[in-house]
Amino acid sequence: MASTEPRIRVAVLGGAGYVGGELLRLLSLHPLVDDVRGFSTSQAGRPWSAAHPSLAHRTEAAFEQPDLEGAAAWADVLFLAWPHGRSQQVIDALLACEPKLLIDLAADFRLEDPELYCAAYGPHRCPDRMGDFRYGLADVAGTGLAGERLIAAPGCFATAALLAAYPVVTEASLDAAPVCFAVTGSSGAGVEPRRTTHHPVRAHNLFAYKLTGHRHEAELTDQCRRWGAADGCRLITHSGPFVRGIHATLHARLREPVRSARELLQRAYEGRPFVRVLDEPPELASVVGTNFVHLHAAQRRGGRELIVTSVIDNLTKGAAGQAVQTMNLALGLDETAGLDFPGLYPC
Amino acid sequence: MASTEPRIRVAVLGGAGYVGGELLRLLSLHPLVDDVRGFSTSQAGRPWSAAHPSLAHRTEAAFEQPDLEGAAAWADVLFLAWPHGRSQQVIDALLACEPKLLIDLAADFRLEDPELYCAAYGPHRCPDRMGDFRYGLADVAGTGLAGERLIAAPGCFATAALLAAYPVVTEASLDAAPVCFAVTGSSGAGVEPRRTTHHPVRAHNLFAYKLTGHRHEAELTDQCRRWGAADGCRLITHSGPFVRGIHATLHARLREPVRSARELLQRAYEGRPFVRVLDEPPELASVVGTNFVHLHAAQRRGGRELIVTSVIDNLTKGAAGQAVQTMNLALGLDETAGLDFPGLYPC
Amino acid sequence: MASTEPRIRVAVLGGAGYVGGELLRLLSLHPLVDDVRGFSTSQAGRPWSAAHPSLAHRTEAAFEQPDLEGAAAWADVLFLAWPHGRSQQVIDALLACEPKLLIDLAADFRLEDPELYCAAYGPHRCPDRMGDFRYGLADVAGTGLAGERLIAAPGCFATAALLAAYPVVTEASLDAAPVCFAVTGSSGAGVEPRRTTHHPVRAHNLFAYKLTGHRHEAELTDQCRRWGAADGCRLITHSGPFVRGIHATLHARLREPVRSARELLQRAYEGRPFVRVLDEPPELASVVGTNFVHLHAAQRRGGRELIVTSVIDNLTKGAAGQAVQTMNLALGLDETAGLDFPGLYPC
Amino acid sequence: MASTEPRIRVAVLGGAGYVGGELLRLLSLHPLVDDVRGFSTSQAGRPWSAAHPSLAHRTEAAFEQPDLEGAAAWADVLFLAWPHGRSQQVIDALLACEPKLLIDLAADFRLEDPELYCAAYGPHRCPDRMGDFRYGLADVAGTGLAGERLIAAPGCFATAALLAAYPVVTEASLDAAPVCFAVTGSSGAGVEPRRTTHHPVRAHNLFAYKLTGHRHEAELTDQCRRWGAADGCRLITHSGPFVRGIHATLHARLREPVRSARELLQRAYEGRPFVRVLDEPPELASVVGTNFVHLHAAQRRGGRELIVTSVIDNLTKGAAGQAVQTMNLALGLDETAGLDFPGLYPC
Repeated sequence: MASTEPRIRVAVLGGAGYVGGELLRLLSLHPLVDDVRGFSTSQAGRPWSAAHPSLAHRTEAAFEQPDLEGAAAWADVLFLAWPHGRSQQVIDALLACEPKLLIDLAADFRLEDPELYCAAYGPHRCPDRMGDFRYGLADVAGTGLAGERLIAAPGCFATAALLAAYPVVTEASLDAAPVCFAVTGSSGAGVEPRRTTHHPVRAHNLFAYKLTGHRHEAELTDQCRRWGAADGCRLITHSGPFVRGIHATLHARLREPVRSARELLQRAYEGRPFVRVLDEPPELASVVGTNFVHLHAAQRRGGRELIVTSVIDNLTKGAAGQAVQTMNLALGLDETAGLDFPGLYPC
Repeated sequence: MASTEPRIRVAVLGGAGYVGGELLRLLSLHPLVDDVRGFSTSQAGRPWSAAHPSLAHRTEAAFEQPDLEGAAAWADVLFLAWPHGRSQQVIDALLACEPKLLIDLAADFRLEDPELYCAAYGPHRCPDRMGDFRYGLADVAGTGLAGERLIAAPGCFATAALLAAYPVVTEASLDAAPVCFAVTGSSGAGVEPRRTTHHPVRAHNLFAYKLTGHRHEAELTDQCRRWGAADGCRLITHSGPFVRGIHATLHARLREPVRSARELLQRAYEGRPFVRVLDEPPELASVVGTNFVHLHAAQRRGGRELIVTSVIDNLTKGAAGQAVQTMNLALGLDETAGLDFPGLYPC
Repeated sequence: MASTEPRIRVAVLGGAGYVGGELLRLLSLHPLVDDVRGFSTSQAGRPWSAAHPSLAHRTEAAFEQPDLEGAAAWADVLFLAWPHGRSQQVIDALLACEPKLLIDLAADFRLEDPELYCAAYGPHRCPDRMGDFRYGLADVAGTGLAGERLIAAPGCFATAALLAAYPVVTEASLDAAPVCFAVTGSSGAGVEPRRTTHHPVRAHNLFAYKLTGHRHEAELTDQCRRWGAADGCRLITHSGPFVRGIHATLHARLREPVRSARELLQRAYEGRPFVRVLDEPPELASVVGTNFVHLHAAQRRGGRELIVTSVIDNLTKGAAGQAVQTMNLALGLDETAGLDFPGLYPC
Repeated sequence: MASTEPRIRVAVLGGAGYVGGELLRLLSLHPLVDDVRGFSTSQAGRPWSAAHPSLAHRTEAAFEQPDLEGAAAWADVLFLAWPHGRSQQVIDALLACEPKLLIDLAADFRLEDPELYCAAYGPHRCPDRMGDFRYGLADVAGTGLAGERLIAAPGCFATAALLAAYPVVTEASLDAAPVCFAVTGSSGAGVEPRRTTHHPVRAHNLFAYKLTGHRHEAELTDQCRRWGAADGCRLITHSGPFVRGIHATLHARLREPVRSARELLQRAYEGRPFVRVLDEPPELASVVGTNFVHLHAAQRRGGRELIVTSVIDNLTKGAAGQAVQTMNLALGLDETAGLDFPGLYPC
């Protein structure tokens, strides 16, 4: 935090949702961020703490009425934390302001292939822009993100599944598309109450969210294909009775046995600061409130079947934390700046 | 369950909410109830299980479009499980059909005093009817309800607080209005999602619901006054991170010491089938899914201060179960018919 | 419930655990059961409600000191609800009393193959007895259980997985062993506190319980093989932050596409009273406190991949309820007697 | 965080429990703390993350075998996070090493009056030392703690109750002892599993923990008396189904009406950095994971009755956070150093 360090100005557009709140929290504490402004149509004029009660200590900060050009001109880094679909509507206007770095947390620019996009989300407004964004899977991309100006932050389920799949897809020979069974907490559904997040319904419940065709499967498959797995990866998503976190369990059949499932993970993530490979299956609670992913791999049939489990905080590693990590990487800062905090435990 | 027993036809009006679902569940299992019909505007034509998934075994039953006169003409007993305010709009039409028994689960007819009502709820549409209803606090009223035709089922918080207060108010000499701290589960907020029942908000939270002026304080005070406590009882309500149940803790200062707090409770509830006086403070989970109330009393300062705790299931004893109990009592049936089941434990 | 019906005397041995408590609850309410006695070493002399607070209404009932011969001589039906391993120690003494029906809820007699048993549990004390028991998967075996005298109730995970696997294994042509991802509530760990069920640890947590080699995989594979799936079924078990229930998601690759995944389930379970095939993925909460299983099937790749989800209450359908169902079937009673109750919802 | 700031060496004795883990978390992140060592008999030689999974990023840190003299000689500040009773056994040995500052988080030195202590806890081993410690209610004591060398950190329930009681006791004229109804999360019971923290029992439960005679009532009453309330304050404690936090609701009858309950709080806590007075009743979740207390006051009977609610994190403000705050104050550092972080929300 020496005075010669860069001081960064950051704008969060769409700051009233859970991801927006997490961005405000993380960026307010970031040692290299000089100033943070939050913009929200629904909350304009109200203090951050009206939407995010835990930010009550930041009494002076209030949401501003969105002024895209103003924000883009002022800020070094723009975080777009809107619901899916809005970014593509305003991307041209934002880019005209030439922000140093723009990070979109919605799905608008996660896929390069317009057809894949269309199948999952419907028509795209500016398909020619889709190739301009870099997919920000920070723990895989690492310093390869240096210098990027346009980053699409991965989806939460996709992050958990991809971090489990990456070592298997790249270091082993798949016999069939792996199957990833994932369970998310209720914060993944966002800030708007609905039946599936009604406490009496959700509190002791577990149910499939999407057995087939979850939208995040598109980006999961897209990345797996880039890594050489032509058939992609199956994503089966569930909703569980907890607030934060995603637990993913990936089962893969291999053509050739692996010697050590653990070493597979270690090789894939050597030196990555936010990845921890454990000897025992990870527990979700260990990463809640952190930017870490904890991974474990087991094997059976002499290494011909692998079972990889991964746990992340869906709002941190699965959204805001990973986005800040990509900011650090894109700007050439210390990758862990503002992110190297432990979680609450127990919580 | 001999064949000479009366066979009763029951209509539930407003069957789509949580209290309606609980009524349908209890009445479907009631050994003396011959037939149950559920009426709901929002769910008309849909199976009961669309609103109440646990009733999936009753596949043939579906909600009917409300037909008040038709229902009232068909049924021996009418249960009104509407939100507050609707009963007073249609009470005249319903009574014109001369139902054998009508039990209203809303607040419309819980108070006799129009002024007390008005202060809590605003103007009443038919204040002259208010005195026609009997307040159905089943474990206190007991067989005194025999022959009643119009019953107002108590509110959930009021039930928990009154069952704790009754022995103290009637068997001891109060020095000041007792103070009752109560915590409810999220099902008390009903079936409509809202911010305070949004799972991410509620799951690990506890907050005051009403520190002063909770509407149920009106009926609590009304009853306490009838029992001789002129200053009524303070009701401080909270919302907790569980689904079913209310835990109430009542603190009372006495003019004269009592010898045994436990005996006070035992005297007050001797022979009452759904009241259990415990040697240890009750736990909420013991009564979830049941029509029982568990009570305990502690004392300090040589019996000059009493602390009474009570636990109930807000949807059963605090609503549907107590209403069915009053049906049993009003019709002269076995008080426990259809209600003498244990809860799930653990749950 | 006519007077000519048989009246049955039932003894529950090992009544102090969660499964024992569930048996006492269900059997006390069973219309054809005349009398229930509970035996427990740890709780002998204490009322049932000391171990199972929700049974507080049964104040007269108390646990008796285990007297195996006495119990076996008195009872028509013996339920053994001990931890694994005890049944095999006393089975000869019990059988010498010639009980009409003996149902063991532990794993001791679930497998016929001593080798399979030994691999999962270690050496068996009386391997020659292993073939004498019938595996009581009630919703598959149905009236085929009539007249059985020795029944081994399936494990909870095995029940959830088998009920999902049965239609796929028997009605479709598998290309590889299906993979079943299952999540259990904390009551599955039993009544003894331990780290993984410590509330601060478990409350918002999800973690793999057994990625490979879960003991229930032995019976799952054993049954799948009998149904023709030589390679069995993979069972990957997890622990979730809820109390009751198991949610299972089974993924299967097929050699030949199926036309309708839904019809597969319907054919397999036609007329089975406790199985419901739903159009939407089931939610766990719908079956909590019931003996029902809710199932759903989705398909992809033109019917070449199936995803079947099943939900059960681990203590009811996964243990005590299924055991009572097998009692009904073995004795030729109405299969649903004492079990046809809905759950609590919400809960 | 300039280089001229003091760099502090801290030892945590008894680091394996929840409070110990919270201390290690907070002190590791404290900008003015140079080095932290954790000592634990049960965990000696194992990494911190074995006991506290969320500290997995601190891979190099491991617990050391307790060496009291060594720790006391090395450290500037000693935190004692042992169970109650151990501090008084070793206090003389520790003080002989002349630590700059010693903060005890157990109850051993919270009371000055040996009789009050004895009534709550039994005989004290070194009653003459009891007067040497300063009671560290940081948000009330503030800079008055500067220069203290021996601090007894308040109990968690006592902290929540005292912060609600302080404005009432000091700024209003009580008519009777206030009554404080408090609910704690399960982490307050510590790291050892027991029946009341067994997940199946606790998950949806609420029960009185101590209706009378909770040990923290001794320190609550002791402080209230110092502030002029001769009759102390009643403390009625409950256990709720959440992990972190205490919600306290205090009801007080006054001799003279107050004009504004809110102003009462504001006057009492003006300028205190960790106290926030809200217009609405606070929600527990807002302070989880923080060192803040949120307060609210309502009034009735024209200001003759006050209801004050307070929420804290029991492990942070109620234990480790407050202890670190007293360290900051005692050493003359910025009171908020290392503590000014927001919580996770939702969580």
